[in-house]
Amino acid sequence: MTIDVHTHVVPADFPARAGGGAEGRWPRMQACDHPHHRTVMIGERAFRTVSDHAWDIGRRLDDMDREGVTAQALSPMPELLSYWFSVDDAVVMADHVNGIIAEMVAREPERFHGLGMVPLQDPERAARYASDLRQRFGLVGVEVGTNINGRPIGDPHFDPFFAAAEQDELAIFVHALHPAGADRVLGPPLLQALVAFPNENAFAVASVVTGGLLDRYPKLRIGFSHGGGGFALVLPRLEFGWRATREQGAFLPDSPTAYARRLYYDALVYDDAALAYLLQAFGDTQLMAGSDYPFAIREPSPGDRFSRLGLDAAAVERLKTGNALRFLGV
Amino acid sequence: MTIDVHTHVVPADFPARAGGGAEGRWPRMQACDHPHHRTVMIGERAFRTVSDHAWDIGRRLDDMDREGVTAQALSPMPELLSYWFSVDDAVVMADHVNGIIAEMVAREPERFHGLGMVPLQDPERAARYASDLRQRFGLVGVEVGTNINGRPIGDPHFDPFFAAAEQDELAIFVHALHPAGADRVLGPPLLQALVAFPNENAFAVASVVTGGLLDRYPKLRIGFSHGGGGFALVLPRLEFGWRATREQGAFLPDSPTAYARRLYYDALVYDDAALAYLLQAFGDTQLMAGSDYPFAIREPSPGDRFSRLGLDAAAVERLKTGNALRFLGV
Repeated sequence: MTIDVHTHVVPADFPARAGGGAEGRWPRMQACDHPHHRTVMIGERAFRTVSDHAWDIGRRLDDMDREGVTAQALSPMPELLSYWFSVDDAVVMADHVNGIIAEMVAREPERFHGLGMVPLQDPERAARYASDLRQRFGLVGVEVGTNINGRPIGDPHFDPFFAAAEQDELAIFVHALHPAGADRVLGPPLLQALVAFPNENAFAVASVVTGGLLDRYPKLRIGFSHGGGGFALVLPRLEFGWRATREQGAFLPDSPTAYARRLYYDALVYDDAALAYLLQAFGDTQLMAGSDYPFAIREPSPGDRFSRLGLDAAAVERLKTGNALRFLGV
Repeated sequence: MTIDVHTHVVPADFPARAGGGAEGRWPRMQACDHPHHRTVMIGERAFRTVSDHAWDIGRRLDDMDREGVTAQALSPMPELLSYWFSVDDAVVMADHVNGIIAEMVAREPERFHGLGMVPLQDPERAARYASDLRQRFGLVGVEVGTNINGRPIGDPHFDPFFAAAEQDELAIFVHALHPAGADRVLGPPLLQALVAFPNENAFAVASVVTGGLLDRYPKLRIGFSHGGGGFALVLPRLEFGWRATREQGAFLPDSPTAYARRLYYDALVYDDAALAYLLQAFGDTQLMAGSDYPFAIREPSPGDRFSRLGLDAAAVERLKTGNALRFLGV
């Protein structure tokens, strides 16, 4: 019995481009040679070939049953978040993607929980859209990028949206997107996801902690993908620096560790020792199963690792389901 | 008995600016109100106020004796590395700083080992300079930045220098500098060092691993500051991605973990659980004490943490001294 908070949806097709401003980056689906697969084209570039597990409920349920996954939180493939389009174009994409996720949830409400998307390039518009997520689409939360066009997610610029999200009790799932330092990575394109994503996650968690978001909106439930990336190894240094400079005026009212332990993280770190360290850093009340289903570097049977760490049964239960239910608010 | 591989030197004074090209960034020393302190000015900006521990051997030895440090590896304050000047200006600074470190080592050769600097903005010139480090200055190695004007240290662009460093058997100490993603950090300037530095270290280790540097120069001894930052949490994802894609042609001939375990890391992570995780990730043959002496966020008594982890005596001995002696080649 596991709830997987980190799974993605790609619609089988996309709407036609709305208006101007999309400038060659509007996605479309293209047939491909593999059976059961289609290729997401971004302009003329083949962005990613995805299997129909990305949109087909029946195929998802087969995998979930085989791997002991009771329910999945469904969120958009991050490249669909559309922050780089005009806000009107982004709303066209949001309506489409949120509608697809809403349909999947409506058909299997016990097995799927929906995390939608909002046009966060316009925080006021995103705030107004936020209330649609629950009321119009029946979603429990929203996926947001680690940065919005280069601005880290913890920036007060996004406060209008976070105020609305807190009001509407939406779960916030933060996913790596267009990472900082992409030009510091050597090797083929895959290495962006392997190296720059974990660093990008670390920047995002740190921005939420040091930007004071939890002081302004203390009831927010915020979860980070990929275990928060490298953040668990940044945290002790942040904590040490906070303590060392406290007498001259602390840069945060509470300690960085106290904030970090109010955030949620998936356990998608691919390694028992790394997961055991995350449990020490964040506590067994803040981690949840996450797989990156259905993409290539997903981790199958995402709940299994929790059972291998010698934890007591109550802790394993929290990690497999309880923390996810609390984060999702279901 | 501990060898501290991560300590910095700031000269008491700087040479006059050499020629053109320094454009307001050439450092000079300015008197300051605190006794025993001076302020490093970068142009008209007060970059950092440093105590005379940064250049005074007697004061260093007092601290070392008090904290159980047998020997320090001395390296330049990273902002002195001068990659952003003309190569001739950089050589003026390198001659000065290397000379100061050489003097300190010559006066107390049992207590200090010297890591110098080279003008790495010109890899061929840096290669020629490398042989001076040992022969002219009596240094055992060199400190380099995690990036040189934005280019990651593992980039083949720097191969001429690394070929010479391998030939001359120099220890390479990689220190965070001008980090990627600085604009993703929220809060006062101190947070750059607390958040962006660990991520920058992770980018640098990854660049050495995925850029194939150890395949081209297998005898290099390369050590990373700050425990390699977040890299120990990037590594399992890199390893998973390598294994998942191996059949379509691996992006490295050997596994990322195998390369990572040939590199050295200081243990400056400020936390027992983090250090225990690093030992699992990298092995107890690759970690060394490091303190960031004499700067504000240094960790006092850097060897003590190794004694608290329940390791056997031989492992503690390796971590406190043996690995450092092997890395430094002394």
